[in-house]
Amino acid sequence: MKNYDLVIVGSGPAGLQAAIHAARRKLRTLVLGKLEASALFRAHMENYFGLSGKVSGEELLRTGLEQALRFGAEHRPEDVVALEMDPEGFRVKLEGGEEIRAGALILALGVSRRKKKIKGEDPLVGKGVSYCVDCDGFFFRGEPVAVVGEGSAAVHGALTLSKIASEVHLVAEDLRVSEALRRELKASPVIWHRARAEEVLGEESVTGLRLSTGEVLSVKGVFFEEGAKGALELATALGVALDPENMRYIQVDRRQATNVPGVFAAGDVTGPPFQVAKAVGEGCVAALAAADWLAEKKRAAGA
Amino acid sequence: MKNYDLVIVGSGPAGLQAAIHAARRKLRTLVLGKLEASALFRAHMENYFGLSGKVSGEELLRTGLEQALRFGAEHRPEDVVALEMDPEGFRVKLEGGEEIRAGALILALGVSRRKKKIKGEDPLVGKGVSYCVDCDGFFFRGEPVAVVGEGSAAVHGALTLSKIASEVHLVAEDLRVSEALRRELKASPVIWHRARAEEVLGEESVTGLRLSTGEVLSVKGVFFEEGAKGALELATALGVALDPENMRYIQVDRRQATNVPGVFAAGDVTGPPFQVAKAVGEGCVAALAAADWLAEKKRAAGA
Ligand SMILES: Cc1cc2nc3c(=O)[nH]c(=O)nc-3n(C[C@H](O)[C@H](O)[C@H](O)COP(=O)(O)OP(=O)(O)OC[C@H]3O[C@@H](n4cnc5c(N)ncnc54)[C@H](O)[C@@H]3O)c2cc1C
Ligand SMILES: Cc1cc2nc3c(=O)[nH]c(=O)nc-3n(C[C@H](O)[C@H](O)[C@H](O)COP(=O)(O)OP(=O)(O)OC[C@H]3O[C@@H](n4cnc5c(N)ncnc54)[C@H](O)[C@@H]3O)c2cc1C
Repeated sequence: MKNYDLVIVGSGPAGLQAAIHAARRKLRTLVLGKLEASALFRAHMENYFGLSGKVSGEELLRTGLEQALRFGAEHRPEDVVALEMDPEGFRVKLEGGEEIRAGALILALGVSRRKKKIKGEDPLVGKGVSYCVDCDGFFFRGEPVAVVGEGSAAVHGALTLSKIASEVHLVAEDLRVSEALRRELKASPVIWHRARAEEVLGEESVTGLRLSTGEVLSVKGVFFEEGAKGALELATALGVALDPENMRYIQVDRRQATNVPGVFAAGDVTGPPFQVAKAVGEGCVAALAAADWLAEKKRAAGA
Repeated sequence: MKNYDLVIVGSGPAGLQAAIHAARRKLRTLVLGKLEASALFRAHMENYFGLSGKVSGEELLRTGLEQALRFGAEHRPEDVVALEMDPEGFRVKLEGGEEIRAGALILALGVSRRKKKIKGEDPLVGKGVSYCVDCDGFFFRGEPVAVVGEGSAAVHGALTLSKIASEVHLVAEDLRVSEALRRELKASPVIWHRARAEEVLGEESVTGLRLSTGEVLSVKGVFFEEGAKGALELATALGVALDPENMRYIQVDRRQATNVPGVFAAGDVTGPPFQVAKAVGEGCVAALAAADWLAEKKRAAGA
């Protein structure tokens, strides 16, 4: 199993700034996640200190990644599907199935912005429409279901459901997942439809899903699983506390430490303001705090 | 008296990022301080997200100022010599004598980095060598003294001492102060020596100060007053609390608010890590928190 001092989950401004500072502090650093999934990727901005004019978010992210790599960090454009405690720190499970060991973690996963809802979705929430395979999958034992989404969360959700449901349809125009995960999907009974979901059908409960191709899937359940596994799911599985006010963001102190020793968080995931300047500031502080924490642990172990 | 929603004290990365965000929130914003006095001005750096290669701090600061001005903030390269409460908010006294009113304040003054000490300085601390005219000036009533420093703190210190001491020498190769303050100095009895201070003379107590010109000033006191009036002096006069651990930084919460309502702080002044990324993150958060605070106050007043 590969071993890193620090694994940073997320390759947005927060994660990349953390990687830059961690690598400069000579930590063996791995930063995970897809640039294209950063909130900044398709944005243009002009309110970040030191960059004049409107700059492309994609360009900024590429420059930030290049900086992190130049200082010695490694990067893998893969999603994390599970985080677990480990006697020596943490275990990080990647979408492709590989596991990695980390001495410390920085959670910099951003916040998920739901795409536009589709027709029929809202009225059928709880009546067959769900946003969490791990929570609701069991209710569809032996029934046909559909999963909507292009990322690792959707593919993993579909694979999980394929062991529960009678029939699993994955609806995605394209897939943004690793080769390994794509192969796993191919080998599974999941049926992939290259289409958009257009309408959830049903009155009292879900009876079907209409696709952009005109086809109607006869299903009892529709799971919307966009993007990667959410920060909150990953974090709470580790015992990381959320802010008590609205239970939507990871709670941190002024050093970006969570309640779990060795786990830090930075960027949008810790709450508003959702701004690049705030994300890089927190990424910098989190990396230096993680480096201090690791050094302290080493000292204590040596003593 | 000129009136602003927000006055930002300090034109480093923290202050300029705060100005950018405040102006975008449509606050009437004034940012004070000299770019050349920022810790970043003479630095080069390569660890700030999004800027590739080694970039010049001076260039970054000029770009940041241009961004702030473009969004509508005003800038004056003047030091603040006093901050006071006011029924409508705060009063900001500039080095040139002018007073300005502010609804809210952001303290972004950085930390002062003492230059190299000179010979004889250390052994004579408390025996004639001092770092604070306001604290120790009174002890030199009727005696000759010297003030060493090029900024507004030194000139103001010398002017203050000219009402107490028998003779005041100001030692500075050059002056970095406003025209108004320079005129005030000229009209005063202070004697300006265009030189560097090289050695404090004396055994039991200070007897003189040797200059780079070879001249020896016969003085009983030597005040080192570098840079601008320090953050801690300005802040504590307002009742702003310092961090209880080392009493050297301004204590803030996650929204960058101090214990004094309407006073926020950002950047090096709130403590380590001393990094541009951290400074801009805090500047962004402080500006948005100040904007929210002002809006809340307005609502409360209207209700
Ligand atoms: C349209 C738009 C315009 C914007 N304009 C501005 C602007 O003008 N100025 C400004 O300052 N901000 C702007 N923002 C906000 C800014 O983009 C965000 O605040 C910033 O990107 C947050 O950085 P982050 O690193 O916290 O999260 P993100 O940039 O969102 O990055 C999150 C990262 O986490 C990864 N990730 C998520 N889940 C997983 C997982 N399970 N495993 C592995 N990796 C995962 C993603 O792949 C991504 O790399 C804008 C945002 C949008 C959407
Ligand atoms: C040699 C050197 C190299 C560095 N290299 C790096 C690096 O590679 N990467 C990195 O991230 N950081 C680096 N830093 C640190 C970085 O420069 C600081 O963290 C950053 O400048 C802090 O920003 P700030 O806005 O808080 O304070 P500063 O940039 O110090 O700005 C303080 C501002 O407050 C003003 N001010 C002070 N007193 C008053 C007053 N009484 N009235 C009005 N205005 C006042 C000053 O004029 C100035 O404009 C370096 C610093 C130095 C000295």
